[in-house]
Parts: sequence; C-alpha cells; structure tokens
Amino acid sequence: MQAIICAGERQLSVQETPTPELTAGMIRVKIAFGGICGSDLHYYQHGGFGTVRIKEPMALGHEVSGVIESIAPDVTGHTVGQRIAISPSRPCGHCRFCQMGIHNQCLNMRFYGSAMPFPHIQGAFCEYILVYPHQVHPIADHLSLSEAALAEPLSVGLHAIQRSGSVMGANVLVTGCGPIGSLLIGALRRAGAQTIVAADVADLPLTCAKAMGADHTINLMKTPDALAAYKADKGQFDVVFEASGSAPAFMNALDVVRARGVVVVVGVGAEVNLPLSQIVAKEVDVRGTFRFHSEFATAVRFLNDRLVDGRPVITSTQPLSAAVAAFDMAADKSKSLKVQIAFDA
Amino acid sequence: MQAIICAGERQLSVQETPTPELTAGMIRVKIAFGGICGSDLHYYQHGGFGTVRIKEPMALGHEVSGVIESIAPDVTGHTVGQRIAISPSRPCGHCRFCQMGIHNQCLNMRFYGSAMPFPHIQGAFCEYILVYPHQVHPIADHLSLSEAALAEPLSVGLHAIQRSGSVMGANVLVTGCGPIGSLLIGALRRAGAQTIVAADVADLPLTCAKAMGADHTINLMKTPDALAAYKADKGQFDVVFEASGSAPAFMNALDVVRARGVVVVVGVGAEVNLPLSQIVAKEVDVRGTFRFHSEFATAVRFLNDRLVDGRPVITSTQPLSAAVAAFDMAADKSKSLKVQIAFDA
Amino acid sequence: MQAIICAGERQLSVQETPTPELTAGMIRVKIAFGGICGSDLHYYQHGGFGTVRIKEPMALGHEVSGVIESIAPDVTGHTVGQRIAISPSRPCGHCRFCQMGIHNQCLNMRFYGSAMPFPHIQGAFCEYILVYPHQVHPIADHLSLSEAALAEPLSVGLHAIQRSGSVMGANVLVTGCGPIGSLLIGALRRAGAQTIVAADVADLPLTCAKAMGADHTINLMKTPDALAAYKADKGQFDVVFEASGSAPAFMNALDVVRARGVVVVVGVGAEVNLPLSQIVAKEVDVRGTFRFHSEFATAVRFLNDRLVDGRPVITSTQPLSAAVAAFDMAADKSKSLKVQIAFDA
Amino acid sequence: MQAIICAGERQLSVQETPTPELTAGMIRVKIAFGGICGSDLHYYQHGGFGTVRIKEPMALGHEVSGVIESIAPDVTGHTVGQRIAISPSRPCGHCRFCQMGIHNQCLNMRFYGSAMPFPHIQGAFCEYILVYPHQVHPIADHLSLSEAALAEPLSVGLHAIQRSGSVMGANVLVTGCGPIGSLLIGALRRAGAQTIVAADVADLPLTCAKAMGADHTINLMKTPDALAAYKADKGQFDVVFEASGSAPAFMNALDVVRARGVVVVVGVGAEVNLPLSQIVAKEVDVRGTFRFHSEFATAVRFLNDRLVDGRPVITSTQPLSAAVAAFDMAADKSKSLKVQIAFDA
Repeated sequence: MQAIICAGERQLSVQETPTPELTAGMIRVKIAFGGICGSDLHYYQHGGFGTVRIKEPMALGHEVSGVIESIAPDVTGHTVGQRIAISPSRPCGHCRFCQMGIHNQCLNMRFYGSAMPFPHIQGAFCEYILVYPHQVHPIADHLSLSEAALAEPLSVGLHAIQRSGSVMGANVLVTGCGPIGSLLIGALRRAGAQTIVAADVADLPLTCAKAMGADHTINLMKTPDALAAYKADKGQFDVVFEASGSAPAFMNALDVVRARGVVVVVGVGAEVNLPLSQIVAKEVDVRGTFRFHSEFATAVRFLNDRLVDGRPVITSTQPLSAAVAAFDMAADKSKSLKVQIAFDA
Repeated sequence: MQAIICAGERQLSVQETPTPELTAGMIRVKIAFGGICGSDLHYYQHGGFGTVRIKEPMALGHEVSGVIESIAPDVTGHTVGQRIAISPSRPCGHCRFCQMGIHNQCLNMRFYGSAMPFPHIQGAFCEYILVYPHQVHPIADHLSLSEAALAEPLSVGLHAIQRSGSVMGANVLVTGCGPIGSLLIGALRRAGAQTIVAADVADLPLTCAKAMGADHTINLMKTPDALAAYKADKGQFDVVFEASGSAPAFMNALDVVRARGVVVVVGVGAEVNLPLSQIVAKEVDVRGTFRFHSEFATAVRFLNDRLVDGRPVITSTQPLSAAVAAFDMAADKSKSLKVQIAFDA
Repeated sequence: MQAIICAGERQLSVQETPTPELTAGMIRVKIAFGGICGSDLHYYQHGGFGTVRIKEPMALGHEVSGVIESIAPDVTGHTVGQRIAISPSRPCGHCRFCQMGIHNQCLNMRFYGSAMPFPHIQGAFCEYILVYPHQVHPIADHLSLSEAALAEPLSVGLHAIQRSGSVMGANVLVTGCGPIGSLLIGALRRAGAQTIVAADVADLPLTCAKAMGADHTINLMKTPDALAAYKADKGQFDVVFEASGSAPAFMNALDVVRARGVVVVVGVGAEVNLPLSQIVAKEVDVRGTFRFHSEFATAVRFLNDRLVDGRPVITSTQPLSAAVAAFDMAADKSKSLKVQIAFDA
Repeated sequence: MQAIICAGERQLSVQETPTPELTAGMIRVKIAFGGICGSDLHYYQHGGFGTVRIKEPMALGHEVSGVIESIAPDVTGHTVGQRIAISPSRPCGHCRFCQMGIHNQCLNMRFYGSAMPFPHIQGAFCEYILVYPHQVHPIADHLSLSEAALAEPLSVGLHAIQRSGSVMGANVLVTGCGPIGSLLIGALRRAGAQTIVAADVADLPLTCAKAMGADHTINLMKTPDALAAYKADKGQFDVVFEASGSAPAFMNALDVVRARGVVVVVGVGAEVNLPLSQIVAKEVDVRGTFRFHSEFATAVRFLNDRLVDGRPVITSTQPLSAAVAAFDMAADKSKSLKVQIAFDA
C-alpha cells in the first residue's frame, strides 16, 4: 500500500509500505480522507518541534476517516463496509493518569504520527490501517467521509472547552481562527457560549470563524487596537481561547480576560516574556489543553447530526498522489484552512 | 498621633499626623502591632512596584492588631477594650466583582496602604485608626496582639489555598518560605495536605517552614538538583505554590507539577521567559492569587485556637521609634522573617 | 388599567387597578404578552402551595414582555418604543446571598407575583408596569413579543443546567416535558448535551420535546418499562433533570443516573419516600434548582438569534378579556403547553 | 487458622478455616487488629441490609492491621515484619468507573466482607490473609497496630469530605458521632473546617466528638430544639454531614444547611419522607458518599504523624476468642464506640 512518509525536515514522500495484516482483536480500515494538521506540517517543515525530532521515517497523519475492510473473527459489533471516523487516541489504560481518568495524559500514549516516543508511533496517512474496536466511530449516512475526518480537530476544540470548565452563558474570545480555532468556535456555539468574538491576522480564517458561529470578528492586522476596549474594568471576557500560538496574542488575552477569568492555551508555538504580576493581580487562570480522549465520541455525534457543521473549514481536497503539494498548500495559512488528502481518489 | 509615612523611594519617617475623629458607624482602634510586608518594603526601597508608584505621602501598613478605644453611638456589638485583629480589606460591595462574590477583585477596593489608586489609600501604621465594624475580629484571651497581626498574611495563604481548589490529600510543594510562604505552609498543614515539601535558597526560612509543618525542606542554593527527581513521569506534585517571586522557581514549578496539576502564583516579582508548550503539553493550570477577603475570619479563628500557630514566623519586634531600622531589618531576608512594629511600646 | 388578580382559591378576575405613575430611576412598560406559569396555576387552583398561601389580592404573572412607554428623566440608555423582555428577578444586592453572588437566593427577593412574603409581591399580569433598568432586555427586531415572554421559563432551564455543573458531552434524561421541561431541552441541546432522552406521560409534551431537540422520547404511560434498560451497570445517564414533580419520576431518576451522576430537581410538587441508601450506594448528587438571575440575559440572547427556538412550546394565545378561560386551558396539561395572555389584543 | 464467620442472622462464630497459601504477586499478613464496623453488625444482627443478604458463610471484617508474614518471590519493596494497615478496597481497574477514576464505584469491586456479590467476598477477620502490594500501607514506628486499624473508617470520613468539595473555612455540622462521625470530625478539623458542631442523641459519642475536635456538641435527646436557631435566614451551615442514618436527622440537615449548601449523606439506614420542595427552594445539594479508595493512603499518613489522632474512638479491645461478645458490645452504641478484636491476643 501507499503511505505518506516523513524522514526529516522537507523529506516527505508517498512510499510503498507493507499492508498491515489483520490480527486478533483488530479491524482493518481502508482510509478515505486524512486532514493535514499543524503538527504534520511541523514535521514536514522543521523535522519536529521543540525537543521532539523525527529520528526514523514515520508515516504522518492522525485526522482520518475510512471504511471497514475486514474484521478479526473475535471482534463483534461491527460490519464490513461501515463508514467510520477513527480516533487516533490509544492510551494504555493502566498508568497513573489513565487510572485518574486523564487518558490524554497517558504515560504510554500511542497517538498516531507522533515522534515523541522512540520508536515513533507510525501515523494513519496510508491506505490501510489496523484499529482497535474502541477507535471506531460509525458516522451517519448523510455525513461525508471528508467531514468525518474533522472529528479529530473538533475533538481538540471540545476538550479545550472541557478544560475551561463551562462556557454556557459566557462571553468568549478566540484568538487564532485556523482549522482548530474555527472548529472550536463551532463547538463553543454548540456549548452555549453567549457571545463569541474571533480575532486573527488574516481575512480567510475570520470568514470561516463567522461561518462557524462567531458573533464578531476582528482582523488585528487591520485594526490592531480593536481589543483595547475589552481591557476596561479588569477585563471583559469570561474565557479566552488562545489558538494562534503567538506571544502577543497570549499577552492580549491576559489583558482582556476578566478578573478570575480563564485563558485556555491551545496553540503551542509561542514563547512569551511574562511578568507574573499579569497573572497575580487579576487572579487569572491560565490552563493548557492538549489533544482529547472521550471527546471524540461527542465530536462524531455533533457532526452526525450537524449540531456542529464543519464544512466551512475544509478549503481543499487533494489526491494521495499530490500529497506533497497538499502539504505546501496547507502551509500557506492565508489561503488555506484545512487541506485534506483523499486516499481513494 | 504618630504614623509611618513613605513619601517615595527611601523616604520613610515617623511623623506626627492628626488623630482621626470618631464618626458615625465607625470604631476607633488603638493600634498595637503592625507587621512589615513585602509591599511595604517595595514602597520604601523602590517607591513602588511595576506601574504602581507613590505620588503623595502615604502611611504604610496593613497587617495590624489593636484595642478598641472608642465606638460611635450607632454601632452595636462591640466593647471598648476589646482586643482585635483588623482586616484591611474594604471592598465597595456594589461593583461587578463584589456582586459576583469576588470582593478581593473589587473595582473600588480601599486596601490599607496602597498606591494603586490616587489619591492613595492611607495605611494603618499609625497610633489610631477608624475602622468599620466588619473589619473588626476579636481575638482569644490567650492570643497575643503580636500573633493577631499575623491574621493578614495568614489570610493571604488561606486565599491561595482556596484558589488551588482543594489540597486535602494532595502532595504539595511551596517555593519561597518567607513569612507568606511559611504561614501558607501552616495553613496547608491545617487544610489537610498530605505531604508538604518546602524549598528556599536560605536556611532561616526553611527552619521556619519546618516549624510551620513542612515534611521536607530543600535548600536550593546548597542542593540545586534536589527537585529534579520530582520531574519524573510528568511531575509528582499535585499543587505547587510559588511564593518566591523568582523566575527559575516558577519554571521549576512547571516541571515538577504533575499533568493537570495546579501552580498557584503567590509571588509577584518575576518576569519569566515562558515557552507556552510547558503549559500545554501537561495541561498545567497556572492560577494567580491576590490578597483575600472572607478568609480573614478563618485566619483569626485558626490563630485563636492555635489551629495554626504563627509564632515561628515572627523574628523581631521593634518600637515605633525604630521603625526605619525595622524596615531595614525586614529587608534582609537571610536574617529576618516577619518584623513587627510595636505601636504602644 | 386592567390586571389579573387572584384573591384566593378559584378567585381569579380581571380588575381595574390604578396605573403606576412613573417615578425616578424607573421605566414604564406597556405589557404585551404574559405566559401562565405553574405557580400562577397553583395560586388560582389551590390558593397557593405548601405553606405559601394568598392572604391578600395579588396580581399574578412573571413571564412578560412589552414595549417601553415612558422613561424617567434620570434614566439613560433606553428609548421609548423599545421592545423588551422583562426579568422578574429583583434581588436586594446587599444580603448575605447577594454578596456571595447567589442572587436568586436573596433574603429580600421581590419576584413578581409571589405570596411568599407579606405583603405579597404584586405580579406583572397588568397593562402597565414600572421596572428598573436592570430588568430591561431589548429583543431582536425579528423576534416576536410572544416569544420574548418565553425568556423567563427558558431562564429557569438555563439555571437548572448551571446547577448541574456542565452538560457538554453528557447523556441526559429529562422527565416531565411541559413548558419548563421542553424549554430546558432546547437549552440542553444548545449547551452541548450529547444525547437527550425525554420522558412524559402524555404525547403532546413529548411532541414538543422532540421539536425542541430531544433525540428520543418515551411515553411512560404507554411503555412504563422503557427506562428499565438504563438502570444497567449502576445507571446510564450522566445527568437527569426531574421536571415533572412526580415521586415515581424522582425515584426512577435515582435508578437510571450513573454512579456519581447528578439529578437536578426542577419540579416541586412531589413528596417522595426515599431510602437514603439510594443516594449513598451510587453516590448520587441530588441538586435543587430554583428560578434564575443572570441567566435571563443569556435566555434573551439565545432567543434573539434563535439559538434556542421556543415557538413549539406556545400552544395558545388568549386576549386579556379571556384570562380566566386561559388559566383553565393552561391547567389541562394533556392539551396545552404554554398558554399566553395578549395584553394589548 | 481461626476466622470470624457469619452464616446468617445471629449466626456468628469463630471457626477453623484453611490458612491461605502464598501465591505469586501476593503478600501474606498476620492480622493484628480488626475493628467491628456497622455493616459487620448488620450482617450479625439482621443477616444483611436492604436487599443484601448473607447467602453463604462469610468471614466478616474489613478494618484491619497486621504484620507482613511472608512475601511472594516476585514482589519487591516490602519486608517481612513490616507493620501495616491494609486497604480492603480492591477495584478491577478496567471497568467504566475505574477508567473514570471513580474506583470506589467499580462494577467488579471485591471489598472485604461484602455479601453484595455472590459468591460473597470473604472478609479479613481471620488470622492470615493474602493481600496485593497496593493494599499494603506501612505505619510509623510509634503508631500502634490498634490505631492502624482505624485507617479504614478514617478513610470513609476523608472520602466524605472529598465528596463535599472542600470544607476549608466552612461552618460544618455533623449529625451522628459514632466511630464514623467522630473520625470524620477529626478529619474535618484537619481539613480546615472553621467551626464544627456535633450532634447526637447520647453523651458518649459527643464526648468523643469533642475529643476529636468538635467546637460545640449538642445532645438532641436532652435539648431537641438546639438546632432550631441554625435554621434562620435560609440556614447557617455550609456543609452538613449526616452520619446517624436517622430520618429526622436528615430532615434537620435540610433545614439548617444554608441555601446552595451541601448535605453529605454518610449513614444509610434511614428512609425519609421527603417533600422535594425542601431541596428545590434553597437549592440544596444532597450528595451520597460510599467507602473510599485513594483516601486510604491519606488516612494512614494522617495517623502516622497523628495529624488525626483516632485514639478517643477506640472504647474496647477484645481477644479473638471473645469475638461474639465483642459484637454484642459494639451493638450497644450508648456504651461503645469502636470495639476492636485483637487477633494475636
């Protein structure tokens, strides 16, 4: 079968690899669509991020949908031909954090396409993949397999909301409206946020944010002072989600969140120069959020009934043969939001 | 009467000022003891902190105890001669945050000895002061007025614990064991922490931390790597209280706190260079804590029955006439913890 | 002006009463629509409920919308002709609970049409009413004044959700799908519930529940055992909202909620025979919910953009002259959900 | 070896049973002390409780301490002769609730001496027992093995406090001051409760409650109206722990807890006639609490340093040969609190 393999910085190719053989307890899935994520891009563009580096060839990808191709005899409850979204979250279930119910922090996590451990965890950008039954989430007849591949980034948004406590009735700001930020906005609207303000430095993501349910959008490149009014009286937002990974956006968040408000940090790129008095005086609560686990089922359920409609986020679909071009396209954030690979095109 | 007035950097003196006249609804208190706090020292040493600067002569001080000297005729429930701790927290009760029950974030707070607003809020380092009945907290017969003046910094510790959620059964690290950190340790022990590790760069505060209830103490000057073992497996502490205001201590806190753990930022001095991935990957929760409000009553109650015994924290008591020397003494943190002024000595 | 006055059990009439004169700080509103609530019906049918009895003639009603008719000169920010929903919640702002931010538990609450205090708090079923500016919530141009009068019962649902903690991603059961239960279902869908099962003993409310967003409906009269399967493995629902006020429904809730799940008690009528072991063994959390306060603004915001569409709940609108007949109609729950009075018809 | 076997109502005897053979992964412990718990008494006096009935002979007991007698070769980290408290909590680690981190609600729990499942889970009132390493909690040199056997009921109290959220700074009422209630009071004092009022119908438990840290005690037999003053202004206690299992005590709890307060139900005996309006109007939060899991380690840690001193709770120690008499003694709650069996006496 074919797979999208990254061997290091700018070393990306579609390669022939062995098709995995079906083993006991497993389900083999023919992959349909795969969305290119920011971490996939980091591996491609920089060979990794921070201390995480690609040290051996690794298939990328973790946002995938597909069709069940074959099922081990000891697995029940599934049928060949079922159209599914696939959760890439494979915690061990036994470690300290799994036993606390914090599976996304599993000490032995095998998340698709991750160079954190060595040997690396091979990704899901390939034609066939073996999955555990718990990874399988059937989709509704009317939902496209392309949309189903949004379940993963939508889960990231849902988990970020869980980390915030609750947004029901809250006034919320989202900074950074790429695919994650935009799907988060769709989730926030569904989770009962009262007012959603979306900010970015480009128009395309803001158009998407609006389509996903934002009440107001702010282009910080065109109107850099548009957030200033929200600093009044110790801040006006109950919750801020920082999804741009930019240092100024994070500092802005601390200014516009209200006293005792919550800043959820979704984006990872930034290194900030932070006077701790900014956190102390208003008693801000800065919370990291990372991946998801149980939220995947919720994401599929929301997509299935279009309680969240992710279609505005997908800006392009490319065949597997054009995978490298697709990655280059995804890297231009002013022109692309989510770029997907069609594996059976 | 005499008061300790700061007119700017290094401009500190004991001055004659008018004794306040008793007015309706108020109680006049003869001040007994006043503890010198870090913020008092900042005004004295630097004329302020950050953007907060002394712009007019201001009496310092907010950690005070005293004896009721006279009571307005319309005030009931108190008696002349009552020995009391005085809460310096005077929120408006009407603003957005007061109506949310977050009185310590009051938009119109009149906290003693604060140059945040202008005109400044005059402090309580003087011989007589007018207080509202809600500021008055009677102390037990066997409690000294000196100990009663610890109710304020103990309240800071109690509020920090409230900000952490709960420490019952938790493994806790406290970095920075000055008067605030040490009283916090006493409060943590009383609040049911399971294990308390205390770290500092000097021996005197660690001796105090031990006396206040720490299980283990670490001198980071002598054994800089002593915290390294706590980084294992995504961190070992459920909660870290950073009370030193130092940047390396804050970065250490992020390393040793467990995934989904809480870092409460008590100390304000530091400016840190923070890669946000440090917060994101382990989903750390960084929470500011600032002053207190309802915790003052709890602090007095704990001191009254010695459920927290603050005596190890007081290292020196100086007469009002030696106030400036007392400030200099308090500034040498290797030799002093809490230095108090005796106003009626 | 005319008002709907209740003088005791079955003593309901439309009477002429003095039009209130505009006073400083107030706004006079011409009432448009008023929804008949269960508590209004209790006053009419039984002269009260529990120990709360009508002891003097009292105007009923608290679910009202209207148009601003005149404004005191000292009030700014509003205009004559504005179409508004009116919050009936008038807490004192000063008592212990208001200062805790729990305004709906105000010790001095003046909620419209309540015989709890004496003299009673007169209701809003009248042609003109004086309101404080904080009670005024402008509605969107496209929203009918009839729908605007649903803001109050929708607020009850939103507050019930707040009391539950969070329903995002939760499997939820609602028992009792009258106007409160049905609007609650609309709110649950908007608040991100994953699956919503609705149960009642009649078809009309279940049809409405479905229209408001329920995934599955159960007629417990026709299929009394339909909930039994949800008892398996210590219960299947994360949260149950009991809005029927019936004892069997409450006992059912304890059976089908999962261990550590939450049962929110919305309905008040029932007296249950409760073995406490039912709460202890599974560690159920049974929480009362009562009225609302800040949720009113959220309700108006959701109605304004039809993030919750309450129209399926309104089954009849009657002119003021037919008020008594309207009450009789509202009392027949198999045929009516929300019955509204049109005051300017 | 000898064991205390219950074969049904009033069928209790010390019997010879086979000594368990050491198997891989296990530790064999010579039991030192065993405390008689209310559930042991229910099996003895009534053959069970509610639908839980003894259907085959079962060793009773789950509050035990002992000394490690032998260790399987594959077990590391323990030594023969170690003095330990033994946790009776043996969850499966795999079921839905274990994976949520709610181990005490495990669907496959094997808690010592429980007739809930069939075959029953044999208890720990015997001379030798096999335990998993995770059940083993070493005790401090200065702690007696008798005190160590209090770790289990103290854990029940600690878990009840966890269920309440937090008691730091709270005004708390405990109704029912038997061994569970009294150890709970010790835990509440250690967890930072501000004021603890203890109520019972007999003097002996109240004397113990006082010794464990209660501020005020109320004998409801002698002064039945003593709680009435706490009903004022929608209740005066932030949290009430009902540990008597009596219906009037539960109804009292609803009256004296404040609006939005928490009633934790610890005692299981009562069946109450509950008007739900009692829960709704004040928005009370009624929470069940059941056993414990991770709290056992905290209990041992608190006992080890006498952060909680449980000695006032133990009123008698009887040799194994007098086991039946010991059960009769424990059943007379006016004369006994915790009665322990000395297995090696």
